[in-house]
Amino acid sequence: MDVNDCDDEQARTGARSSMWGGRFADGPAAVMERINASIDFDKRLFRQDIAGSKAHCRMLMETGIIPRDDGAAILAGLDQVLQEIVEGRFAFSTALEDIHMNVESRLREIIGPAAGRLHTARSRNDQVATDFKLWTRDAIDGLDARLTALQAALLDQAEAHADAVMPGFTHLQAAQPVTFGHHMLAYVEMFGRDRGRLRDARARLNECPLGAAALAGTGFPIDRAMTADLLGFDRPAANSLDAVSDRDFAVEVLAAASLCAVHLSRLAEELVIWTSAQFRFVALSDRFTTGSSIMPQKRNPDAAELIRAKTGRVIGHLNGLLIVMKGLPLAYSKDMQEDKEPVFETVETLDLCLSAMAGMVADLTVNRDRLAAAAGAGFSTATDIADWLVRELGVPFRDAHHVTGAIVKLAEDKGVGLEDLSLADLQSVEPRITGGLRLDSAGSAAARTSLGGTAPDRVREACTAARQRFLNPEDRT
Amino acid sequence: MDVNDCDDEQARTGARSSMWGGRFADGPAAVMERINASIDFDKRLFRQDIAGSKAHCRMLMETGIIPRDDGAAILAGLDQVLQEIVEGRFAFSTALEDIHMNVESRLREIIGPAAGRLHTARSRNDQVATDFKLWTRDAIDGLDARLTALQAALLDQAEAHADAVMPGFTHLQAAQPVTFGHHMLAYVEMFGRDRGRLRDARARLNECPLGAAALAGTGFPIDRAMTADLLGFDRPAANSLDAVSDRDFAVEVLAAASLCAVHLSRLAEELVIWTSAQFRFVALSDRFTTGSSIMPQKRNPDAAELIRAKTGRVIGHLNGLLIVMKGLPLAYSKDMQEDKEPVFETVETLDLCLSAMAGMVADLTVNRDRLAAAAGAGFSTATDIADWLVRELGVPFRDAHHVTGAIVKLAEDKGVGLEDLSLADLQSVEPRITGGLRLDSAGSAAARTSLGGTAPDRVREACTAARQRFLNPEDRT
Amino acid sequence: MDVNDCDDEQARTGARSSMWGGRFADGPAAVMERINASIDFDKRLFRQDIAGSKAHCRMLMETGIIPRDDGAAILAGLDQVLQEIVEGRFAFSTALEDIHMNVESRLREIIGPAAGRLHTARSRNDQVATDFKLWTRDAIDGLDARLTALQAALLDQAEAHADAVMPGFTHLQAAQPVTFGHHMLAYVEMFGRDRGRLRDARARLNECPLGAAALAGTGFPIDRAMTADLLGFDRPAANSLDAVSDRDFAVEVLAAASLCAVHLSRLAEELVIWTSAQFRFVALSDRFTTGSSIMPQKRNPDAAELIRAKTGRVIGHLNGLLIVMKGLPLAYSKDMQEDKEPVFETVETLDLCLSAMAGMVADLTVNRDRLAAAAGAGFSTATDIADWLVRELGVPFRDAHHVTGAIVKLAEDKGVGLEDLSLADLQSVEPRITGGLRLDSAGSAAARTSLGGTAPDRVREACTAARQRFLNPEDRT
Amino acid sequence: MDVNDCDDEQARTGARSSMWGGRFADGPAAVMERINASIDFDKRLFRQDIAGSKAHCRMLMETGIIPRDDGAAILAGLDQVLQEIVEGRFAFSTALEDIHMNVESRLREIIGPAAGRLHTARSRNDQVATDFKLWTRDAIDGLDARLTALQAALLDQAEAHADAVMPGFTHLQAAQPVTFGHHMLAYVEMFGRDRGRLRDARARLNECPLGAAALAGTGFPIDRAMTADLLGFDRPAANSLDAVSDRDFAVEVLAAASLCAVHLSRLAEELVIWTSAQFRFVALSDRFTTGSSIMPQKRNPDAAELIRAKTGRVIGHLNGLLIVMKGLPLAYSKDMQEDKEPVFETVETLDLCLSAMAGMVADLTVNRDRLAAAAGAGFSTATDIADWLVRELGVPFRDAHHVTGAIVKLAEDKGVGLEDLSLADLQSVEPRITGGLRLDSAGSAAARTSLGGTAPDRVREACTAARQRFLNPEDRT
Repeated sequence: MDVNDCDDEQARTGARSSMWGGRFADGPAAVMERINASIDFDKRLFRQDIAGSKAHCRMLMETGIIPRDDGAAILAGLDQVLQEIVEGRFAFSTALEDIHMNVESRLREIIGPAAGRLHTARSRNDQVATDFKLWTRDAIDGLDARLTALQAALLDQAEAHADAVMPGFTHLQAAQPVTFGHHMLAYVEMFGRDRGRLRDARARLNECPLGAAALAGTGFPIDRAMTADLLGFDRPAANSLDAVSDRDFAVEVLAAASLCAVHLSRLAEELVIWTSAQFRFVALSDRFTTGSSIMPQKRNPDAAELIRAKTGRVIGHLNGLLIVMKGLPLAYSKDMQEDKEPVFETVETLDLCLSAMAGMVADLTVNRDRLAAAAGAGFSTATDIADWLVRELGVPFRDAHHVTGAIVKLAEDKGVGLEDLSLADLQSVEPRITGGLRLDSAGSAAARTSLGGTAPDRVREACTAARQRFLNPEDRT
Repeated sequence: MDVNDCDDEQARTGARSSMWGGRFADGPAAVMERINASIDFDKRLFRQDIAGSKAHCRMLMETGIIPRDDGAAILAGLDQVLQEIVEGRFAFSTALEDIHMNVESRLREIIGPAAGRLHTARSRNDQVATDFKLWTRDAIDGLDARLTALQAALLDQAEAHADAVMPGFTHLQAAQPVTFGHHMLAYVEMFGRDRGRLRDARARLNECPLGAAALAGTGFPIDRAMTADLLGFDRPAANSLDAVSDRDFAVEVLAAASLCAVHLSRLAEELVIWTSAQFRFVALSDRFTTGSSIMPQKRNPDAAELIRAKTGRVIGHLNGLLIVMKGLPLAYSKDMQEDKEPVFETVETLDLCLSAMAGMVADLTVNRDRLAAAAGAGFSTATDIADWLVRELGVPFRDAHHVTGAIVKLAEDKGVGLEDLSLADLQSVEPRITGGLRLDSAGSAAARTSLGGTAPDRVREACTAARQRFLNPEDRT
Repeated sequence: MDVNDCDDEQARTGARSSMWGGRFADGPAAVMERINASIDFDKRLFRQDIAGSKAHCRMLMETGIIPRDDGAAILAGLDQVLQEIVEGRFAFSTALEDIHMNVESRLREIIGPAAGRLHTARSRNDQVATDFKLWTRDAIDGLDARLTALQAALLDQAEAHADAVMPGFTHLQAAQPVTFGHHMLAYVEMFGRDRGRLRDARARLNECPLGAAALAGTGFPIDRAMTADLLGFDRPAANSLDAVSDRDFAVEVLAAASLCAVHLSRLAEELVIWTSAQFRFVALSDRFTTGSSIMPQKRNPDAAELIRAKTGRVIGHLNGLLIVMKGLPLAYSKDMQEDKEPVFETVETLDLCLSAMAGMVADLTVNRDRLAAAAGAGFSTATDIADWLVRELGVPFRDAHHVTGAIVKLAEDKGVGLEDLSLADLQSVEPRITGGLRLDSAGSAAARTSLGGTAPDRVREACTAARQRFLNPEDRT
Repeated sequence: MDVNDCDDEQARTGARSSMWGGRFADGPAAVMERINASIDFDKRLFRQDIAGSKAHCRMLMETGIIPRDDGAAILAGLDQVLQEIVEGRFAFSTALEDIHMNVESRLREIIGPAAGRLHTARSRNDQVATDFKLWTRDAIDGLDARLTALQAALLDQAEAHADAVMPGFTHLQAAQPVTFGHHMLAYVEMFGRDRGRLRDARARLNECPLGAAALAGTGFPIDRAMTADLLGFDRPAANSLDAVSDRDFAVEVLAAASLCAVHLSRLAEELVIWTSAQFRFVALSDRFTTGSSIMPQKRNPDAAELIRAKTGRVIGHLNGLLIVMKGLPLAYSKDMQEDKEPVFETVETLDLCLSAMAGMVADLTVNRDRLAAAAGAGFSTATDIADWLVRELGVPFRDAHHVTGAIVKLAEDKGVGLEDLSLADLQSVEPRITGGLRLDSAGSAAARTSLGGTAPDRVREACTAARQRFLNPEDRT
């Protein structure tokens, strides 16, 4: 952001800029241009637009629909356009409305009338659907990489703290001891499902709209399989009306992103709570917190709070696009121009949140002493008593519960923890109890050896398995 | 709905019923019971709850955790409970809060203390997650069947009207002729993707939470693979904390349902427009319309309007559940009790809408004459001129466009359709035009022979392919 | 919930009840009846429907549109219908679709053909809009009473703890000491705004649709002002098309409810955090918590969690109704039948949450010692140093900040609190500091005497003012 | 949009720009800066920030908290900063995070250390709340002006076509004749309510947060009433915690905007349908449609479609902000930084949509012949028969309905309209019918003379009344 940006804005709004910054466009022409043009946001599709055009051109050449030399000129011209954009030498024009017309217009300047052959057997309707699918597919791949990096950071912490006992919470009340590593692995599962949803969305979107033309297909002898193949699609879309009116893929990515944002918000909430003075379970690094000039010791978990908050933005976009699509008759309505911004902004937001969370997790300092102290409080090993009674004495579970309640009551009355009760204390409630009953939190956690349970050995095995399931060697950070 | 229902409500609300029907519960106990109990809605899980308990019991027997004869008594008792509920002889109790306690309490009445062994190595947390997953999985299968039936109805119409020419719309303006069959097939694709999303959700949810216990796993030597297998799950869930705190599957089904509802709303909107006096493209049957005693000729498309409207309800539920889950710390919070009603109501709503839409589509009368007349209006074959110029004369596409514009202008000035222009008329604009240029809408549609295009032959092929892709013989209605 | 309810459901679903509980209606007739009939939910409007009909009837009599004796018969008959419903003797019929036809049909049974005059100069369109507005107006009044009761409970706690010092949080980190009373008053303000929004919505909706008839008004010489007056409306709605197609009032109440639910969720979140073992700022009563048979000491904040969660449901309904109304052409579409359930359920939900929250707040035990200890931690009086430097020494604020930072650093290095620093310590950083600088949290709070500030005297004044602003004597609980 | 913008983006993303345009920031510092800094969007608050600072400074001077000459320097310096920004000479810095620090930092450059006195008795928390409220208040005023202009455009059309008969629709089926003017007035009412909601929101937000400081108030002898007065607020906010944590005003404006967007979407939908070839009720001007080079006659209603679609964006933002605020503990959390963008973008979107709609309505050409022809079709005067029978013959309404049904059936059987039936035809069904029964659509509309009805005279009166209610002379466009 520099002075020129502001200057530009001033230039655009001029004397009409109001107190609240609204732009009072005076004429209908200005209003229409503002509401109608999409180049401000769809220029992000330039790589996809040019790749799509090149594939279409190659197919037109191969099928003999356009002359080879015209095709060659088009391909070279498109490469030049791409280079100009990448190098920042391209002058985007709002009058040309969108990225497609901007590119084609420049192509015509470069190669002359032959440019006019590129749009044979094509329409902006199938073109924009193709561009947007290609962009979304690339975005999915980018998000998958981010998610993998976050899983790797979580796994590193999980392995480092596979045996760090902490309270397992229900209702934010200690329920049973778990380990910090086990807790981290829960998030590895969530982000693994997020990757699965994105992967499924990617597979489903991977049908090529090109060749649907305006909506009805075309009479030219095109080869849709060739175009699809050149662009990495699995096959051509089966119905031309559907191909130009379908935005399922955009909604599906927003839905996957919303669930991922919810997962991030859960971890972010935990980080905010865990870094409170009352919990102090973990400490965040300076890099992801902000301080206060007046309270140098303070570390506000700003990044965690922002990640938590951005869930609203992502769900809002999902909701918004579903609303846009509701009740639209086939095939193309201009309403569908509202499809791109929510996806662009969601991908950018999620990408940023995933990066910030991976950084926070990697930098996290775990306060094992605080965790251990908290794990032992609140009679959190009460269920271990009940399980012991069932296992060793054959008491039905529901009855064992009642005995346990009496023991907890005894400890509470004495003002001590369960692990502080003597064998005599225990036997005063249930005479058959023996010294084999361990009631410390570490012992409790270690005993939960069922598959997927919190015993440190199980956690370490789960870490290894998760690396196999989720991280390829080259994905590792 | 009979007098007793109302009477019940009166009994509950009594003299405290206000003008607006609110129930002024006076005491905290009544308020807490109302906000806390879930049996009113979670009793729908009775089949799943009993199936889950039976699988858990069998595993406890096989692993020797509970005695065989106690297990046998439990299994028999659970079967009796199921029978009582199915036959309407079961007395649900709000004091027992939820379906799990209602079932277990009745089991204890039937078989005595041995019932207390059923909950060994289990918790309500993994139990409810399992029940709800089983229900959701069944619901997915039910919706898949509904979607298949709707696809079948669409395919029947598509085949019957593979060659019925109609306007293909963009911006609700005629753009190019298509066929009615082609239009129906676009929806076959949409509902096919909906089925794909549900199928993916089903595969992803198919991991069994049982054995996660409260949140940490258990120390009993349970066999989670056995329970998972007995219940048709692919595998046990990998992490016990995640297993009890995950509601992704519920959100994922709501997201898939939302997109499906959007697809239904698009078709519903088209039916509303198409049945207007101005369009009269199709007629709905009496069965899915309402009339007026004063205007006997009138058929209001009520079912289509209601289907369109219910999109709001479904998206609202998706949104609501995402909000519930936002920012929840692990593992179980009572907030998650709000997970079931949105899913129950969404599945019921979508099931109803799919049924109604399948009925409407099956009953639809297509007004082929009106469609054909509309297809020819609006110079909708203009692009055929341009394509002809490109194909036959080698004119670049963009130039062909300009020539075409001049021809359309000529027709407009003459007040005739394109097909009414004489060869001399055409040649006055472009002398090289020959008699080979057909400009009627049927010819236009027939020429769009590209893969996925609207040519009747292509549509018929696409119908055959769609039957292969989407309809198994046993799925056919 | 008794066995009969379940039996009814069985009866309805019969052998067609699937595993997931879906009802496979076999015929189109059953599907249409299920999707189309509204009597299941709109019977809640019976009081409003009858009140509206009586007002309409009186007007028809006064204007001579119907004979006086017919009118008298109608009025008496409507009273009888009301009585039958209230006493649970009314047989609602799904075949009669909605509450309007159910009432009118019964009226005809009671008084004969004269019943046919009631609908003169009226239509179901203006009738349902009137009924629903009346219901919503009553609901607003009910919610206002609930909000007032909650404010009263908060004010009682605020007065009782006007001087109980606690940490004022930013980022869930202690920032400056405040008092518990001050914190409670923040919520009194929020719920006061909620009442303001409901009051505004009530004023705006209070225009009577009756007389708009189907959509165009009527040729009968009706007196719309009279009907409006009889029903407590401020005036007739100005435009007949708008009168039957407007559902703004429903959306506006849902929007006000959503903000209120968000306020409740904030307080609920605080209660969940404050009752954690790590905070223990307050204790909830047994009445609004659930325990555990195995951990008798445990109190799970279930009611608070459910209140927090139900925010999702309320926002979901707001969202859903906005979606229903999006893009509906005038005047009446059947889509609008989807307007009532979200409002009914939202009002019931909010009513319940407000009741539960008022109960929780009234029952709350404040742990003043824990609050005070937490208030003093974290150098939370650091800004008092800076303010003192500015005020007493005339140091610019930003410079005072730097000095303060150095003092905090000194305390941190010494491992003590700010109040534990000696005067010499302070003077080692800034020699001009004198003994007048108080750094205990109670002193800090007491010093914040600005209007609306946290000083206990200010809090007490604010309590008195809030009682004046928000609680009329008769509103007090 | 020029080449520099793109160049800037390239510079920022550099070689790290991926295929999908994501920015792979490599270091945690870059990630944190991107997620944390708000200057990119909150620089829009510059006028409000400076106005707030000037008011605060004046109060500090008047109360003697800061020296007069320092205050004078601050005021002059702030004016200079404002000028620099307005003239585009201000260099915004991301390192300074937000607009507040950017302004204060520059002030210090200009006037030196005295700048450090400005922040006395203030915090960024009350400062940002004040700035944002001021901006929102200005935005409300701007939107009110836009709404007024739209009402004026609608009123002009209503007056011009007060007697143009058209079909009044229910279910998109002709129900009764209305006039085009009457239809326009329905929207005047809707937008009038939108203005009412914004006005109420404005009144409710108009309490000044300044003086709440960080969250607890301050010990400086500030005069909050003075600051509030200088900034045009009605009073200071009553509670300091609430003052900094309240974002109700933002949500309330988004809720009002959502309803307004829904109203716009309804009108937009009607325009899309009305301009279809099948309806042709109205024609849009070239200025708000797009054409096709190939179909010169075509006018796509792009602006109407975009307005309809943008409803999704607005509702999405409402939803998003509600989600952000859900469950936030007091007082300030960084989550709340997510409050501004949805409001900024919503206001800009709504402003644009209102402008475009006003332009479209003003430019609208009404096809009175098509309207009249459609008004007479579909037996739309059937209810006039029933009303006549009730009024002239004293037949109960429900009985009159049956007679009418028979007459409509007769017309349908004869294949004619109701107005084409002879008196003998009518008398064959009901012998008492006389020649006084008019059945043309103009007569039907003219007869609906009830208050708010569609009779042209009523419509003209309603136009006059609406001008009085909604348009002040100076508001007229």
